[in-house]
Amino acid sequence: MTFNKTRLEKLQKKLSENKIDLAYISNFKTIQYLIGFGSDPFERTLALVLFADSEPFLFTPALEVEVAKSTGWPYKLIGYQDNQDSMKMIIDEIKSRNVSTNKFAIEQSHLTYDKATHLKENFEGSDFSFNLTPIIEYQKLIKEDDEIDKLIQAGKDADLAFEAGTHALMLGKSELQIAAELEYATKMRNVTEMSFATLIQTGSHAADPHGETSDRLLENNSLVLFDLGTVYEGYISDMSRTVALGKPTQHMKDIHAIVLEAQLAAQEAARPGITAAQLDNVARSVIEKAGYGEYFIHRLGHGVGMSEHEFPSIMEGNDLVLQPNMAFSIEPGIYIPNDLGVRIEDSVYITENGAIPFTNSSKELLIF
Amino acid sequence: MTFNKTRLEKLQKKLSENKIDLAYISNFKTIQYLIGFGSDPFERTLALVLFADSEPFLFTPALEVEVAKSTGWPYKLIGYQDNQDSMKMIIDEIKSRNVSTNKFAIEQSHLTYDKATHLKENFEGSDFSFNLTPIIEYQKLIKEDDEIDKLIQAGKDADLAFEAGTHALMLGKSELQIAAELEYATKMRNVTEMSFATLIQTGSHAADPHGETSDRLLENNSLVLFDLGTVYEGYISDMSRTVALGKPTQHMKDIHAIVLEAQLAAQEAARPGITAAQLDNVARSVIEKAGYGEYFIHRLGHGVGMSEHEFPSIMEGNDLVLQPNMAFSIEPGIYIPNDLGVRIEDSVYITENGAIPFTNSSKELLIF
Repeated sequence: MTFNKTRLEKLQKKLSENKIDLAYISNFKTIQYLIGFGSDPFERTLALVLFADSEPFLFTPALEVEVAKSTGWPYKLIGYQDNQDSMKMIIDEIKSRNVSTNKFAIEQSHLTYDKATHLKENFEGSDFSFNLTPIIEYQKLIKEDDEIDKLIQAGKDADLAFEAGTHALMLGKSELQIAAELEYATKMRNVTEMSFATLIQTGSHAADPHGETSDRLLENNSLVLFDLGTVYEGYISDMSRTVALGKPTQHMKDIHAIVLEAQLAAQEAARPGITAAQLDNVARSVIEKAGYGEYFIHRLGHGVGMSEHEFPSIMEGNDLVLQPNMAFSIEPGIYIPNDLGVRIEDSVYITENGAIPFTNSSKELLIF
Repeated sequence: MTFNKTRLEKLQKKLSENKIDLAYISNFKTIQYLIGFGSDPFERTLALVLFADSEPFLFTPALEVEVAKSTGWPYKLIGYQDNQDSMKMIIDEIKSRNVSTNKFAIEQSHLTYDKATHLKENFEGSDFSFNLTPIIEYQKLIKEDDEIDKLIQAGKDADLAFEAGTHALMLGKSELQIAAELEYATKMRNVTEMSFATLIQTGSHAADPHGETSDRLLENNSLVLFDLGTVYEGYISDMSRTVALGKPTQHMKDIHAIVLEAQLAAQEAARPGITAAQLDNVARSVIEKAGYGEYFIHRLGHGVGMSEHEFPSIMEGNDLVLQPNMAFSIEPGIYIPNDLGVRIEDSVYITENGAIPFTNSSKELLIF
């Protein structure tokens, strides 16, 4: 990733509208989004500090300085060694600017108690009540065109990964082995990483939407649920398909057909103007009318971008109106304990003319 | 994992020594360690609350309640839905206990500003200055025997993974493809996950100890650096080896021999009584005497356990005295820019009689 001035300027405009003197940004994912550099510092300190009346600076562990430089960061960059007091160095740098520090913006849902306390003690009387988290989340909500391009590429990789996974299906293999073959084929194509551990669930195991891929052997005449994604230049794909191994029963076919109808109905309804809650309800109504409402036990979808933990959340109660270039998953499911689980998921982005999916694998009940 | 009363009791003893009324535990990894349940809640809330004078309770997203129950948690368990105010529910539950709440213990390096503020506002006048983070870190520092057993198993899996990786070595393949084959062979054996993305670096790429596995093709008559690990029941392995593809130069052989001498010297010296800093210096002196001190640019090692981000940190300035059942990596390296990189790493645990490595693959310069 390389430095992208646009995103930083957009945020700084927002800060100035809110009369913020300085913003202390601690979440490496936010920093990654804003300036194209940022990796998890774990117990170390990473910070991006923006000012109303001074140039920003980036503060990183010494080991990261070269990588940070290579992304083209044009402002001050401070590296620190493990034996140095990182927070003191940051505070000293802020004070050296001799600018107003009355109103801070911090990521209240990320900045930790100790670091926040350190800042508050050193800037006594300053106002820390402004929360940067929603500002950042809303900026990430509307994807730029080059972000959409990366999501499209990640979707193509996911389609190929799913195809490889279906080729691996065979009685005698475990869920973990199918995941291994799917990921192997994907990484042999030089895809750097999966966006999450590939989920393969067979038979009644798929009834637990929060279960994990296990050493359970594939069952004959049964359904197999795939949930997978890949990463392309920091942007993820996320898709689910449910297929049959052997001969599916009529009951399996029926449940699959209901979930597919719900997924397609929501994908068709997803366009500018509808709210997230209304969209959730489009899919949920289909499943409820078929009599399986109690088995659709999660929200319809989540935002996708640099992770699967973004806005918009497609769920009851969210009155956010969908707009062009929002990107999210549409993933209804029916989970009947001790019986089966079916989920079908495409991630999509919104255009003036409707939703376009990033993944294009068949959603029919494929039989292997 | 299943509920382990011992760990919780050990912590509660510590809390009572410090006259803590209640502990609010927010880090899912801490909760996982203490009670055998805990997965990253991301934007949701997960908390374990311990009292001096009341039974503890666990608070989780509704979706996690069944999994939490299945681990055998014997006390109160509260699940919440996305449309409920999680912090209010936690605060109400605490207040309903009618016990003293004057002195809180929180994980100051984990609890976020917004949640801490919420607690402080609702328990006005309470003391939040007690930091739980170091207490937890020190409790995790001395491994229990069953933790050592899991680390040993993870080490065996890592040895097999490395062996599979060396079998995959071939000109024409990329670093990512070697990693793909190594991980494939590992997961086909039903190993659930790698402890981190397998690092394969060829030639001068290995000179960057913070680089990532890339689509770079393997180079002939060159070194290849492996850094890899697996997870067994929540416990990780972490090992590095540097091998040759084709015919290594005398320079490559010399550097490898120096790093190996440093690694073996430190592994021999690692025993109860020596400090972390002294151990770092044992390996560093070998490399310095050989004239390559400036190219050993990181600490000697880090703790291993449920992650590679644990105590003890084997580095200059850390006067912690090593004790039986501490577990950590010993990983000296020499990184010469635009030339080569060599790192050799075993993770070990300390016994009365010295260090025992979890991994046992040959550390000689293997040639493929």
